[in-house]
Amino acid sequence: MNRFALNHATTKFWDQREAVEACARIGAGIGLWREPVAAAGLAATAALVRDAGVAVTSLCRGGFFTGGDRAAIEDNRRAIEEAAVLGAPELVLVCGGLPDRDTGIDTARARVAEALAELAPYAGEAGVRLAIEPLHPMFASDRCVVSTLEQAVELAAPFPAETVGVVVDTYHVWWDPRVFDAIASAAGRISSFQVADWVTPLPAGVLTGRGQLGDGCVDFRRFKTAVDAAGYTGPIEVELFNDVLWSRPGPEVFAETVERFARHVA
Amino acid sequence: MNRFALNHATTKFWDQREAVEACARIGAGIGLWREPVAAAGLAATAALVRDAGVAVTSLCRGGFFTGGDRAAIEDNRRAIEEAAVLGAPELVLVCGGLPDRDTGIDTARARVAEALAELAPYAGEAGVRLAIEPLHPMFASDRCVVSTLEQAVELAAPFPAETVGVVVDTYHVWWDPRVFDAIASAAGRISSFQVADWVTPLPAGVLTGRGQLGDGCVDFRRFKTAVDAAGYTGPIEVELFNDVLWSRPGPEVFAETVERFARHVA
Repeated sequence: MNRFALNHATTKFWDQREAVEACARIGAGIGLWREPVAAAGLAATAALVRDAGVAVTSLCRGGFFTGGDRAAIEDNRRAIEEAAVLGAPELVLVCGGLPDRDTGIDTARARVAEALAELAPYAGEAGVRLAIEPLHPMFASDRCVVSTLEQAVELAAPFPAETVGVVVDTYHVWWDPRVFDAIASAAGRISSFQVADWVTPLPAGVLTGRGQLGDGCVDFRRFKTAVDAAGYTGPIEVELFNDVLWSRPGPEVFAETVERFARHVA
Repeated sequence: MNRFALNHATTKFWDQREAVEACARIGAGIGLWREPVAAAGLAATAALVRDAGVAVTSLCRGGFFTGGDRAAIEDNRRAIEEAAVLGAPELVLVCGGLPDRDTGIDTARARVAEALAELAPYAGEAGVRLAIEPLHPMFASDRCVVSTLEQAVELAAPFPAETVGVVVDTYHVWWDPRVFDAIASAAGRISSFQVADWVTPLPAGVLTGRGQLGDGCVDFRRFKTAVDAAGYTGPIEVELFNDVLWSRPGPEVFAETVERFARHVA
């Protein structure tokens, strides 16, 4: 249980301060999101987590590189700076989908590699790791052209392991027949291990249908064993995008999530 | 255009006879489904397509092996027999999802391999090829644990190429960074080339959101070039599961589909 971390998206509409305080009470870390951090103020949030003694396990999120525009690079520089101020060691990247009808998937993927090359030195100087998150292939067109962990590892490979890593999120990769080989090949580069369950039917738009731990078909202990075997000893973030959970009180969802984590993951 | 074939699912609620007659008028083949075939009668349908001079390009569908039950094997034997009667050279297999909460994905995948081993000799005798269709990973839990073309090729590999093949359906595989390598490795084993476009947002349940050709992001000509390079010279079936298309008159959807095929695929 000492590896449990709450990703704030699980309790998206719960006040960030209350979520941090709840994590402090059980010695958990927290994954923060840029928008609520900005709303509360970057310096105020940094002070909040420092005073509470809560580790910021990741900052979500940078990325969206596939338009090939300078604005994305500049925004990611700011995200790196924010992560550094918060003491977040990892900046999670959702790399972007197909920007328009004329840009093919290979071009979009090449733009991700180019953006990483430009940002990696800056991240390295800031002491923040760029954490490439492969998203489920159902998001390939609109959110992320990086669809497998193997692909994420290949994108990270040209860079120092302490500068560019990969995220293993069970929701996105559980189906992949190559995922356990990819986890082994990611040794030393695992930035974050996130857990969410896979449940069907998926809701319209498919973004907010992640299952509470234990409600679906993901074998979390198998993933934990594989990630541990790859040398990852860091926090395990629970990140659930789920309309039903979001409609419930934050403290209740937090308590349920801690209990499910103990039962299905720890 | 001489490779165009209508999969009847594109015009699901259009009478099968009318669909066959429309195909006959333009020299197209048709992919049939077992349920409408059974409703019209197997012998009557065989006579219908024979008299119309319409090639049955595939029969949909067998599969659903992952429960590991004898009933599935027996049902697939009947499907093979039906395909033989119809003159369909390929029986498309949707291999099945996770049958219950206790059966892991590796077990489910092993059951697919076992079922193929049992059915392949029977299919070979009947002159029908078992066509393994990888489905998009968003269907891995509820429909098909075969999620990539590479995996389908590996499952087919132990059997003669004329007995067990693979389906390349753009809707299911367009996102895969390894798909073009997999198509090359499938040379001689491509049972069917199906086309549908990828559009978002996906509808609830995600089954009926396939896009009309040209409405989405799939590069059909790139896939056609790759499939052709792998030696496939057979029909190209348009298979669209789409609630909006299903609500429109069959002849109108058929004409539109032919026109889109000419513009985006042929």
